[in-house]
Amino acid sequence: MNGRVMAAEMAQQPGTLRTLLARRSEIVDAVRAIIPQELAGITLVARGSSDHAAIYGRYLLEMTAQRPAALVAPSIHTLYRAPVDHHGYLAVAISQSGRTPEIVTVLGRLREQGARTVAIVNGAGTPLADVADVTIDLRVGPELAVPATKTFIGTLAVLGLVAEATGDVPWQWSDLAAIPDQIGALLADSESAAAVARSLDGGDRVLTVGRGILLVAALETALKIRETSAILAEGVSSADLRHGPIAAVGKGFPVLAFTSDGPSGADMAALVTELRMRGALVRRIGPTESAELSLPGGVPEPLLPLLATVRGQQVAAATAARRQLDPDRPEGLTKVTLTS
Amino acid sequence: MNGRVMAAEMAQQPGTLRTLLARRSEIVDAVRAIIPQELAGITLVARGSSDHAAIYGRYLLEMTAQRPAALVAPSIHTLYRAPVDHHGYLAVAISQSGRTPEIVTVLGRLREQGARTVAIVNGAGTPLADVADVTIDLRVGPELAVPATKTFIGTLAVLGLVAEATGDVPWQWSDLAAIPDQIGALLADSESAAAVARSLDGGDRVLTVGRGILLVAALETALKIRETSAILAEGVSSADLRHGPIAAVGKGFPVLAFTSDGPSGADMAALVTELRMRGALVRRIGPTESAELSLPGGVPEPLLPLLATVRGQQVAAATAARRQLDPDRPEGLTKVTLTS
Repeated sequence: MNGRVMAAEMAQQPGTLRTLLARRSEIVDAVRAIIPQELAGITLVARGSSDHAAIYGRYLLEMTAQRPAALVAPSIHTLYRAPVDHHGYLAVAISQSGRTPEIVTVLGRLREQGARTVAIVNGAGTPLADVADVTIDLRVGPELAVPATKTFIGTLAVLGLVAEATGDVPWQWSDLAAIPDQIGALLADSESAAAVARSLDGGDRVLTVGRGILLVAALETALKIRETSAILAEGVSSADLRHGPIAAVGKGFPVLAFTSDGPSGADMAALVTELRMRGALVRRIGPTESAELSLPGGVPEPLLPLLATVRGQQVAAATAARRQLDPDRPEGLTKVTLTS
Repeated sequence: MNGRVMAAEMAQQPGTLRTLLARRSEIVDAVRAIIPQELAGITLVARGSSDHAAIYGRYLLEMTAQRPAALVAPSIHTLYRAPVDHHGYLAVAISQSGRTPEIVTVLGRLREQGARTVAIVNGAGTPLADVADVTIDLRVGPELAVPATKTFIGTLAVLGLVAEATGDVPWQWSDLAAIPDQIGALLADSESAAAVARSLDGGDRVLTVGRGILLVAALETALKIRETSAILAEGVSSADLRHGPIAAVGKGFPVLAFTSDGPSGADMAALVTELRMRGALVRRIGPTESAELSLPGGVPEPLLPLLATVRGQQVAAATAARRQLDPDRPEGLTKVTLTS
């Protein structure tokens, strides 16, 4: 059956996340031990789905470490081979396979140039672990469907623990500990996701929009829809949307908006109104009661991407099912990409 | 006549650039004087078209300063108001109007938190200058068309001078000094751009692709096409394309590829072959003889985005002309965006 593997892996998320969070002190202590005393900044290294996890880590780590955090531009190291002094930097690489050559090369280069290095992988004995001072193995089991689901959500949770190692996190431990059950409840409700997928599936494109840290959910959901459904889905921040692409949003244009009851909520609500005035077909994923796809209320906004992305996975899987495509093995995509 | 203003501003680029480069030592010296002695990193602050200039600055400054450089996530400061220590950082903000409230707020916050600040603007007495240690006024004259052209290219050139202030640039001065004449020669040849616009204009979408620092030209060209022609154009790096979106590229899909005779050339040539095997309709902008839109050969790759982006402007203007749209005043867009 099409999508059987992806569905099974999505369903494993509450359990794998619970096991991961049980390793909290082991992970926090290991990372804390290697953070440079005078932290100059934080660099994240990733591609593809992991790239979106890295954007999450970037927001979070900058807020907790209170020093600038950003994603590396891999080609500066692989293509131009520029020497860039990384003394004082913590570098965090994310690669579920742990063997994307580009990621291994870049993390190795950053370490040679002075960075302390962390690798987030899924599996033991990966080449990425060889260039890491600390390796965090997600241990969520093999991920066989091409669209990353349990490794992605697991990585966000690990980044939450890495953030805890660098400073004060913007949530209570009980908030993070509640996420596995909350994801379980979302997964039990697949009908509303199917309804949203049906209403948005009118053409060959869709726009996903988020603000602040919820941009992560928008980007990841767009990628999932592209991967599973051969739709040209684009993820964008509300701020960037207003700076240009909004001109291409006309009557009936399908938009998936990630709303919040936290700091980004007001801006997104205003954008949704604006998009509807332009005639766009907007569906919302968020903790507000009127949202077409609901999230639990009262979750600190920095944790909301974990829940919102699961909703995005549901929409992507339902869109593929409607189109009778197999999200487990999308045409033209393979699991490990060999960018060098 | 539609597009008259944009065409006039594009035509001014060789002249405005020549005047700007004549201020080389004044600009280089001013920036050099404020660079922190122990440089921890570089932060770029921008939105929209300026965002793409900032990405150019990011590649360039990381290569010359040999310390990590990256774009700020504005919402960390505006939405979450996180305290982020910026001691040891050089912050470079880009805003042609110099009055986008978000950019002014963020640069001010970075300065309060220890950064040395540079503002790149077009015009005197802007609010952004009030929070900058050094202000560089492009002085390219008012830009009236909504799509930024002469301010964008001017900003890239200024970033080249800022890079010179931080270390050794990857070109000879004569290479940069030659750019205005080379842009003049490109602008004199608008027919090949019109032909490329005609061949790509088959639907409501187009993909622009670049690798390394030429990603800047791909992103900026996609934005110009979106702004002028209401086409859902998306700019992407060849590495990211292989990680997912390539699944959506099928027979006849229009792609504009930025090729090079420098470090990114081999990878882009391989990608073009791959895309054509998928049946995509690929047109190339590059210094190779076979490219449908030519660039001069022998230009150091870090300077190529200045020339490649002018080609992108030509394609965007020609596409709007074909569709009888007015690129000077695209529907739904205004010049200054008030993201707060």
